[in-house]
Amino acid sequence: MADNRRYHLAKRPEGTPDADTFDLREAERPEPGPGQALVRLLYLSVDPYMRGRMRAGESYAEPWDVGGPLYGGAVAEVVESNGAGFEPGETVVGNLPWAEYAAADGSELTPVDTGELPVSTALGVLGMPGRTAYFGVREVVEPRAGDVMVVSGAAGAVGSVAGQLGELQGADVVGVAGSDEKVDWLTGELGLTAGVNYESEDVGERLDELTDGVDAYYDNVGGPVTDAVFQRLNVDARVGICGQIALYNEEEVPTGPRKLGKLVETRARVEGFLVGDFAPRFGAATERLGELVAGGELQYRETVTEGLENAPDAFLGLFEGENVGKQVVEVADH
Amino acid sequence: MADNRRYHLAKRPEGTPDADTFDLREAERPEPGPGQALVRLLYLSVDPYMRGRMRAGESYAEPWDVGGPLYGGAVAEVVESNGAGFEPGETVVGNLPWAEYAAADGSELTPVDTGELPVSTALGVLGMPGRTAYFGVREVVEPRAGDVMVVSGAAGAVGSVAGQLGELQGADVVGVAGSDEKVDWLTGELGLTAGVNYESEDVGERLDELTDGVDAYYDNVGGPVTDAVFQRLNVDARVGICGQIALYNEEEVPTGPRKLGKLVETRARVEGFLVGDFAPRFGAATERLGELVAGGELQYRETVTEGLENAPDAFLGLFEGENVGKQVVEVADH
Repeated sequence: MADNRRYHLAKRPEGTPDADTFDLREAERPEPGPGQALVRLLYLSVDPYMRGRMRAGESYAEPWDVGGPLYGGAVAEVVESNGAGFEPGETVVGNLPWAEYAAADGSELTPVDTGELPVSTALGVLGMPGRTAYFGVREVVEPRAGDVMVVSGAAGAVGSVAGQLGELQGADVVGVAGSDEKVDWLTGELGLTAGVNYESEDVGERLDELTDGVDAYYDNVGGPVTDAVFQRLNVDARVGICGQIALYNEEEVPTGPRKLGKLVETRARVEGFLVGDFAPRFGAATERLGELVAGGELQYRETVTEGLENAPDAFLGLFEGENVGKQVVEVADH
Repeated sequence: MADNRRYHLAKRPEGTPDADTFDLREAERPEPGPGQALVRLLYLSVDPYMRGRMRAGESYAEPWDVGGPLYGGAVAEVVESNGAGFEPGETVVGNLPWAEYAAADGSELTPVDTGELPVSTALGVLGMPGRTAYFGVREVVEPRAGDVMVVSGAAGAVGSVAGQLGELQGADVVGVAGSDEKVDWLTGELGLTAGVNYESEDVGERLDELTDGVDAYYDNVGGPVTDAVFQRLNVDARVGICGQIALYNEEEVPTGPRKLGKLVETRARVEGFLVGDFAPRFGAATERLGELVAGGELQYRETVTEGLENAPDAFLGLFEGENVGKQVVEVADH
């Protein structure tokens, strides 16, 4: 009896993925094995890093198998527990298939505790994106009071938190985003010092107008935005490379201006990071982010796409900049 | 009375400098003013970073003026002191013009103390290049026991010291250089684990044969050698950017494969540095380098070009890889 639907990887995309990359299959609700729970998905997360999982070959995230289900962070409700350590009705978060129902080991599920906030925030400001911003700002980019800090992808799930955390650490944050609406959100509700619309403005010229160079850079995007920022790095600047979404759909290695010479002149430090490396401190990060949201010091927004069937569109929209804040897919009412 | 000769910058070069960049003028020996010494140059240093001083515009080293004298590190003998704090006959090192004689403030001269070693080493293994390698390895690249460390420009003044210091810290060092003769020197006398001749071998293929990836990279060169190393960085790799000699003669910003994405995957850290930032600790570095040379743990070589008139050739040869170890110009017998 087909009482479940699940997305599978139809094929590995070349260049930008499209609808043919995804295969929505009718399926049966799985029987939870010993120690497992049957869960009903409420929200699933689509994230830029998932483009990497569509490629063959090792990277920091395991590749998805062709023909196999797509997986990602999701919030779900426990329907049935087979010794999984959860009660029916509990809300959990974990790495789950893009499906309506799934079976998962209890040990891989975590109770959702978002307090007064919607459970979807466990995938956003209080979840992986929020923690990525938290550790990237505090441990890698390290903005100091009075620094000019630039954030690329500043209206995204990670960038919108990173920019606000930079301001809270006393930096003057310039957010780079892809529309006037986003820039207005950054400089209005989020309280950033300034914003640049990279679609309609020359990022380098605007940075020259707005700043005397860049002391700290939180990079989610790469490509020409990053080129413009590197040219304007100040002495002892710190750069954290969180993502390079502008390049994820390239099949050939993209080329650009060589930038390492600038590092000698400025003695700047560039460092890549993965949130997973900070796992032992996730709890503390989530708690702190929750306090900041509760205290009104940290704003967030979610872009919600309804229906599992629309998950591919939600994912593809990330590369078009269609989301403001965290993009989630609402799989079921709750 | 023209009893002195001095090189001036004839014009700012476009691309690779040539003989027309340099103007050798007859001059008079200067009269030392109060607090100054008249010195006779024995050795002058030519270094890749001087290419930057031929450009207009600010960088970390002050630009040379068109029509003005060229300056650099030099070892000289005090001929006459006008209250400079030195006795005639003393050997000093300082920032001096490319000339046979010069006047310099006593406060800007340092007594040369190279012990049993030739005074020219104050420009090489015991001078700025040696210290650059010392601080770059210890404070930036930080090779650990068992690391694979790659050094580009490994047979140069800085690289040859950096590679040996890496081995002394327990790393397996692969030196990249531009001739079989240099590679033989690296793996023979200098004791590096392996060498790659980038002129005759594919650097990436050789690194794949020799290593399971690169944990530490001391980069003097940039360009394609660096591209090959970046592709092979291991998790938590450390990269120190000391110089980018392959790019110094480019007029347009050179392009190459974008490399920042690799930093996310590996959480690698890339940092530029300038030896001048470590000035308070120069004394300790020179002392330690002297001990290592005296103890036979650190080998060095110098390429000596005779005659002030040949200083431009010596300088231009740096970009052709004509030097092994430190390139100096012997200006006068001593």
